[in-house]
Amino acid sequence: MISGTPEPFKLDAQLGRDTVPVGDLPLSHVLLVEDSNYRWLILVPRQPGITELIDLSAADRAVLMEEIATVSRVIKDVAGCDKLNVAALGNVVAQLHVHVIARRKADPAWPKPVWGVVPPRPYSPDTRAALLKALREQLKIAPP
Amino acid sequence: MISGTPEPFKLDAQLGRDTVPVGDLPLSHVLLVEDSNYRWLILVPRQPGITELIDLSAADRAVLMEEIATVSRVIKDVAGCDKLNVAALGNVVAQLHVHVIARRKADPAWPKPVWGVVPPRPYSPDTRAALLKALREQLKIAPP
Repeated sequence: MISGTPEPFKLDAQLGRDTVPVGDLPLSHVLLVEDSNYRWLILVPRQPGITELIDLSAADRAVLMEEIATVSRVIKDVAGCDKLNVAALGNVVAQLHVHVIARRKADPAWPKPVWGVVPPRPYSPDTRAALLKALREQLKIAPP
Repeated sequence: MISGTPEPFKLDAQLGRDTVPVGDLPLSHVLLVEDSNYRWLILVPRQPGITELIDLSAADRAVLMEEIATVSRVIKDVAGCDKLNVAALGNVVAQLHVHVIARRKADPAWPKPVWGVVPPRPYSPDTRAALLKALREQLKIAPP
C-alpha cells in the first residue's frame, strides 16, 4: 500500500463467515447472524481500523446510535421479542461490530447472554429468505 | 400515585445492591460494580419506566452515547485495558442500564463476556476508595 493512501474498509473474515449480508445503512453494514436460535443482527460501521466505539468520531457515534435504534425497532417488529440485547464486545473479533439481538424468554440461552451457550443452528433456506425479505423491506434497503 | 403525576425515577434495587455510586452525569447515574475481577461501570439514565434504548428519545440516546464514550475513555485511562465491552442487555434487571467494562486478557473471563463466569470478588476498602477517587476526578463529578 502506498504511504498516505487510506486503507479501504474490509469486513472481518470471521464476521463474513458467521453471517449473511442484509444490506447497507448510511454508516454500517447490516448482517444477519446464521443462527436460527435467535433473531440476531450485527452492525459493522464501514470504517477501516476501528475497534472501539471511542475510535469513531462523535458524529459517527451519533449516526451509529440511530442505526442501532432503527435495527432494534425492525428486528423487534419482524421477529417479536421480550427484550433487546445490544452489545459491542469484540474480544474475539476486534473489528468494531454491534450486536442487536431480539431475545425471547423461550430462547435456548435466556436469561443469559447468547454467546457460547448453545451451538449455532443454521436457518432453513426458506426461513432465511423470508426473514431477509422482511428485514430489507422494513429497513428500506436493497440486497448487497 | 395520583393519575397524571409522573412517576419519579428510582434506581432498581438489585443494581443498587451490586454497585457503589460514583456520581451523576447529565443523563445518567454512574455506578461502579462491586466486583474487583474487572473494572466495570454501569450507566443508568435517570428516566422512569425505561427498559430499552429505543424507549429513550433520540436526543437522550445521543447524550447517552456520549456518556458511554466519556465513561469508556475514563475507565480505560484509569484501569488500562485490552478491550472495552459495552452492552445494554437487561434480561435479569429490566431497568435500562449500560455496562462499560475494561477487559484485560488476564481477567478471569477473557475472552468470554463477563456475566456469570466467576463469582463477584468484592473490593478491598482501600482499592475501592482509590478507584472511586480517580474516577470522580477524571469524570469531574462529585460523590452523590
